[in-house]
Amino acid sequence: MKKKGSGIPKGYSFSTTGAAIKKPGRKDLAVIVSEVPAVMAGCFTTNSVKAAPVRLCMKRIRSGRGQAIIVNSGNANACTGKQGMRDAEEIIYSTSKILGIPPSMFYICSTGVIGTPLPMGRINDALPALAGNRGISSIDDVAEAIMTTDTFPKVLHKRVRVGGKTGLISGICKGAGMIAPDMATLLCFLLTDIAVEQKTIASLLREAVRRTFNRITIDGDMSTNDTVLMMANGLLGNTPITGRSEYLGPFRKALHEVTYGLAKLLVSDGEGATKAIEVCVRGAKTPADAEKAAFSIANSNLVKTAIYGNDANWGRIMAALGYSGTRFREERTDISFNDVKVVKNGLSNDRDREAAEALKSKEIRITVDLHAGRSSAEVLTCDFTEEYVKINAEYRT
Amino acid sequence: MKKKGSGIPKGYSFSTTGAAIKKPGRKDLAVIVSEVPAVMAGCFTTNSVKAAPVRLCMKRIRSGRGQAIIVNSGNANACTGKQGMRDAEEIIYSTSKILGIPPSMFYICSTGVIGTPLPMGRINDALPALAGNRGISSIDDVAEAIMTTDTFPKVLHKRVRVGGKTGLISGICKGAGMIAPDMATLLCFLLTDIAVEQKTIASLLREAVRRTFNRITIDGDMSTNDTVLMMANGLLGNTPITGRSEYLGPFRKALHEVTYGLAKLLVSDGEGATKAIEVCVRGAKTPADAEKAAFSIANSNLVKTAIYGNDANWGRIMAALGYSGTRFREERTDISFNDVKVVKNGLSNDRDREAAEALKSKEIRITVDLHAGRSSAEVLTCDFTEEYVKINAEYRT
Repeated sequence: MKKKGSGIPKGYSFSTTGAAIKKPGRKDLAVIVSEVPAVMAGCFTTNSVKAAPVRLCMKRIRSGRGQAIIVNSGNANACTGKQGMRDAEEIIYSTSKILGIPPSMFYICSTGVIGTPLPMGRINDALPALAGNRGISSIDDVAEAIMTTDTFPKVLHKRVRVGGKTGLISGICKGAGMIAPDMATLLCFLLTDIAVEQKTIASLLREAVRRTFNRITIDGDMSTNDTVLMMANGLLGNTPITGRSEYLGPFRKALHEVTYGLAKLLVSDGEGATKAIEVCVRGAKTPADAEKAAFSIANSNLVKTAIYGNDANWGRIMAALGYSGTRFREERTDISFNDVKVVKNGLSNDRDREAAEALKSKEIRITVDLHAGRSSAEVLTCDFTEEYVKINAEYRT
Repeated sequence: MKKKGSGIPKGYSFSTTGAAIKKPGRKDLAVIVSEVPAVMAGCFTTNSVKAAPVRLCMKRIRSGRGQAIIVNSGNANACTGKQGMRDAEEIIYSTSKILGIPPSMFYICSTGVIGTPLPMGRINDALPALAGNRGISSIDDVAEAIMTTDTFPKVLHKRVRVGGKTGLISGICKGAGMIAPDMATLLCFLLTDIAVEQKTIASLLREAVRRTFNRITIDGDMSTNDTVLMMANGLLGNTPITGRSEYLGPFRKALHEVTYGLAKLLVSDGEGATKAIEVCVRGAKTPADAEKAAFSIANSNLVKTAIYGNDANWGRIMAALGYSGTRFREERTDISFNDVKVVKNGLSNDRDREAAEALKSKEIRITVDLHAGRSSAEVLTCDFTEEYVKINAEYRT
């Protein structure tokens, strides 16, 4: 997978600026523009409390088309009532005028503090600079501008060969806190120059989100603003990919790799996290049982503080399995930390010290084999530290 | 409500000693004995992974009778397989012989580290001392011996007038971590000299647990060892209370007060807690809706870190309501911290600063009115601090 600064899909330009939305001194406003109207798809939070920009995007995405996305960090424009909706519409209207793109082709996303109206004066003042920076800013600048408590910008690119040409999928996202499945608190923008039929891209995006972003949890809190938007502007000039296309497979694979890679970056940058954790549950009776078990472990504060403390405290994993609702028998269960099997047939294998050594790694894999069936599930999460508490106790101060 | 050192129900004696179960230098083994066989009732964890002593108690409680309870802290005897069951039976057998009480009248409880076999040698060595201390130790000593990460022993007494005589209900418990409803990680022993019919006491205990211990949450992790046992030895000499007795009401009220008081002590001593929080949801469509909403707020790490940081970050409460599954409308919702209404009709009331002042109190009440119906629910919890992480990262070291 290509990293930072390695080219972007054809026909996209970027712009960022600082509007002092939460505080001055950083980029917090960004716009992504495609030269030509693009096919679009989106996935949104299932929280019943949805921010104004989410409600606005959910309406527009029905058209399956779009050309620009404006994003701000520092303020979520959530729980802001009718004023919040008017503000989101006003920003779209003003930006669309400056950039010469119809308002109906504009999408808007916000992330940050909930319940405070957007500082419209400062945002309006910043729009000319935003327009002026078009083409000067990079996709990496956008990834930086959408950060909240993230400690690094998250950008990934993946090449795909389609009909003798090489297209590109680029993805950027932000995460860090209020991360739970359905979906992670995240904004994610996926851009490609490969032509894909609208129905196909919508279904591929749903599948990718289900298999990656919906399988991560940082703190179990579900956000009001989660949004994944994907644009395919077709400037590669290939025959649009459909459900029957020979290039469907490679495109799906590349999209999965980008979203999975971003999901891994999200958990490794979870608020206060020092370790990335992959919870793998195998041998479950059904996929739903496997998933319940994996999420129960991945959401347990006690499991996650133990991993932070390099303590192979598998009893907490057993307890989390026990209240997960998954059907299993304690006396058949095996548990490993990385390659060290600490529990065999429900009992201690006397390898806690070895496992404690293994837990000093930055990448932890907890493997649970229930020996109850053939289903499995993986969930990504991170450890749980004092720093998480500190960040979230002081977030608005 | 009477506090420490204010007398105990007739006919109970106590004994404690140190067996160095987790580490030397503290009381960690205790026994509670009634002079005569008592009517008994119990409630147990719903975690499917149950410790050996829990499984043993669940069998015995069917008889509705008992005379003694032996308890240890430092080791939960959970996830210890057949050996764990043999160990629990052996302790009962040895202690019953020393104390001259039939093994069938003996109950056993354990709390502490999961997955390590009990140190049977050290426990057996300590049994003579345990027998020798009978009558020398107090109920407060027992409350101390069952502590794990608790920072203070929890004992409450309540007098009840029954048929011209004054009986007593005494309760002790331990909590601190792995506390979640159904049930809190807790051991709780309730002792009374008032005669109560077995069916009646079983139903009163279930009700009291449902309304108090099952309405608290500290970290959302459900234990493998939760046990509440109640003994009524009838030595007050009253006509046994039944479902039709005129003393049913006062007895029920007193039992509720003891369990509610203990539940409040549990949350105020939650691991690392600096504040007790009461979440009150009103105006829900149904009791189930009210409860879902209250638990969703009380289990949110983000809400609890904000309270710790004196931040009236009501947006996190709104987000927790939004993913709770409760039916409500954002634009009708009111939220208060103590007496400061920060949200009216879903929007900021511009009182966040006043609320931040109110949050400096040690007792926080979050009131949410959904204006969607007439049902309400209260859940007790505590704030969430760096200290919780520290305690649980280092628990076994």
